[in-house]
Amino acid sequence: MTVASPLERGRRTRDSVSILVVGSVFFDSIETLHGKADRALGGAATYFAVAASFFAPVRMVAAVGEDFPSEEMEFLSGRGIDLAGLQQRPGLTGYWAGRYHEDMNQRDTLQLDLNVFADFRPQLPAGYRDTQYVFLANIDPRLQAMVLDQLPAPGLIGCDTMNHWISGSRSELEQLLGRVHVLVINDEEARLLSGERNVVRAARRLLAMGPRRVLIKRGEYGVIQFSANSVFAVPAFPLEEVFDPTGAGDSFAGAFMGYIARKGVINESVLRTAVVYGCVLGSFVVEEFSVKRIAALTWEDIEQRYHAFIELTDSHHSRWTSQ
Amino acid sequence: MTVASPLERGRRTRDSVSILVVGSVFFDSIETLHGKADRALGGAATYFAVAASFFAPVRMVAAVGEDFPSEEMEFLSGRGIDLAGLQQRPGLTGYWAGRYHEDMNQRDTLQLDLNVFADFRPQLPAGYRDTQYVFLANIDPRLQAMVLDQLPAPGLIGCDTMNHWISGSRSELEQLLGRVHVLVINDEEARLLSGERNVVRAARRLLAMGPRRVLIKRGEYGVIQFSANSVFAVPAFPLEEVFDPTGAGDSFAGAFMGYIARKGVINESVLRTAVVYGCVLGSFVVEEFSVKRIAALTWEDIEQRYHAFIELTDSHHSRWTSQ
Repeated sequence: MTVASPLERGRRTRDSVSILVVGSVFFDSIETLHGKADRALGGAATYFAVAASFFAPVRMVAAVGEDFPSEEMEFLSGRGIDLAGLQQRPGLTGYWAGRYHEDMNQRDTLQLDLNVFADFRPQLPAGYRDTQYVFLANIDPRLQAMVLDQLPAPGLIGCDTMNHWISGSRSELEQLLGRVHVLVINDEEARLLSGERNVVRAARRLLAMGPRRVLIKRGEYGVIQFSANSVFAVPAFPLEEVFDPTGAGDSFAGAFMGYIARKGVINESVLRTAVVYGCVLGSFVVEEFSVKRIAALTWEDIEQRYHAFIELTDSHHSRWTSQ
Repeated sequence: MTVASPLERGRRTRDSVSILVVGSVFFDSIETLHGKADRALGGAATYFAVAASFFAPVRMVAAVGEDFPSEEMEFLSGRGIDLAGLQQRPGLTGYWAGRYHEDMNQRDTLQLDLNVFADFRPQLPAGYRDTQYVFLANIDPRLQAMVLDQLPAPGLIGCDTMNHWISGSRSELEQLLGRVHVLVINDEEARLLSGERNVVRAARRLLAMGPRRVLIKRGEYGVIQFSANSVFAVPAFPLEEVFDPTGAGDSFAGAFMGYIARKGVINESVLRTAVVYGCVLGSFVVEEFSVKRIAALTWEDIEQRYHAFIELTDSHHSRWTSQ
């Protein structure tokens, strides 16, 4: 049985569900215990966009170099990702090389060449100005703010960041957080930004900085979502093998924002389901290098794991009547 | 409104639900960032028994010294804990002193005096031989086996252990695991015992050693329960302050076993609800030193947090219709 994905359904019915993402499009060379990838397609905007593309059309704002292959362009646009905002500029595409430890929560950066990304200044095509759903992936908070400055009336603004900006550009980041609705951040970053070790206290502090929702990513332990009056916690989907954890958080954010855009309504129930779809895409992306696994997914694969996830976390389990 | 606890209801209807626990009853001196406790009632059997006592009558098998105060005896028996199996012997009660780091997953042992526990040999009173529900808290696997040898027909056998026995008494422990139905263990111990870092692979290996269920405790990240054909994962209840993590795992096990004994039936649904009640009691015990917090709980407190826990983890959240 073939099921129409929400993307197809969404396209048929309305266009206002587009999600704009700004962030990096890089080549990554990655080593894990399980193998090596050489100059594979990577970057936060890439992972976000491919994951989100299952749920809604995506508009991408980023910069790549002259070396960026047309096949990759075609791959992205073939997924419903609008590349009008992707600047192709003289020079080379950004490059990151890293090696993961046996404990995959730890990695070493072996090389980082920003290349054309070094002086990237986001310029939104006129056609992007009506975007309702915006995700500011991890880049300099000044650039994240520049994107917001070009959007007259965004509906939902999500944001990620990292240690580098928390330590080095705290005031710019704090200013930005006053304009953001949903902060998506990992636990270590949440501690650094809030100054609190305890996850509940950290989230309270981060909510006080502006966002109405704070989602704290805990790697293999899942995600915990806070608002002023609710908490929702999910484990990660347990996998026998994590091949390469790169992009899990960005794919999480892509599916999270994608599901919300697709639904076109924001309430507790939608936000919780969005977290689960985020975990589902995050669990797929780590099964192979780059976006290989999620690019190959069918909507049925996603629904199947979504239901497995619900079963994993369902404390009123009624399907089982005997051990 | 006063609600009859399952304990009261259980007592009225049947006695076969009694749970036998064997393990340590100690005095603990504990330092955390939040304060100090001096020679407070502790030990795995104590935490287990007090938590389980909300759900079912408990039979305790342990040893204490002449210094063990009659008030503590009265406290325990006042909670429906049968002390016929608690040997009071010449010498001193076991003593442990420890200090937790700011990261409460880490602690240093400052002093450990086994005292009368050093040559403890469990002797079950004749009245304990019909026990259906048995929990072998963390002690020498030889002693755990000795308890099983004295039980003609136990229905459900749960077991905990620790690094010390995994490294030092592996063959005795592996033999024991062939006789156990439910293994309750923390993630570090699961890795050490299985030789696998990945939690899914670790659980598969542990299931192959005998138990039909493996519950892996992940501290502040919750619990994950495996059987041959199901996985159930829950986060821990998020607390703004963890006062003292001592006893969280033992209280978890107490409520888990207690709930199962109370229901008197073992199926997936009961086992999942038991995990949630385990997390509830585990979340209370860390709010104060020793068993102070859980000893003061009413059944309504437990039910309230149980419902908060369900809300925390409910991905089909329907109560909320607006943000």
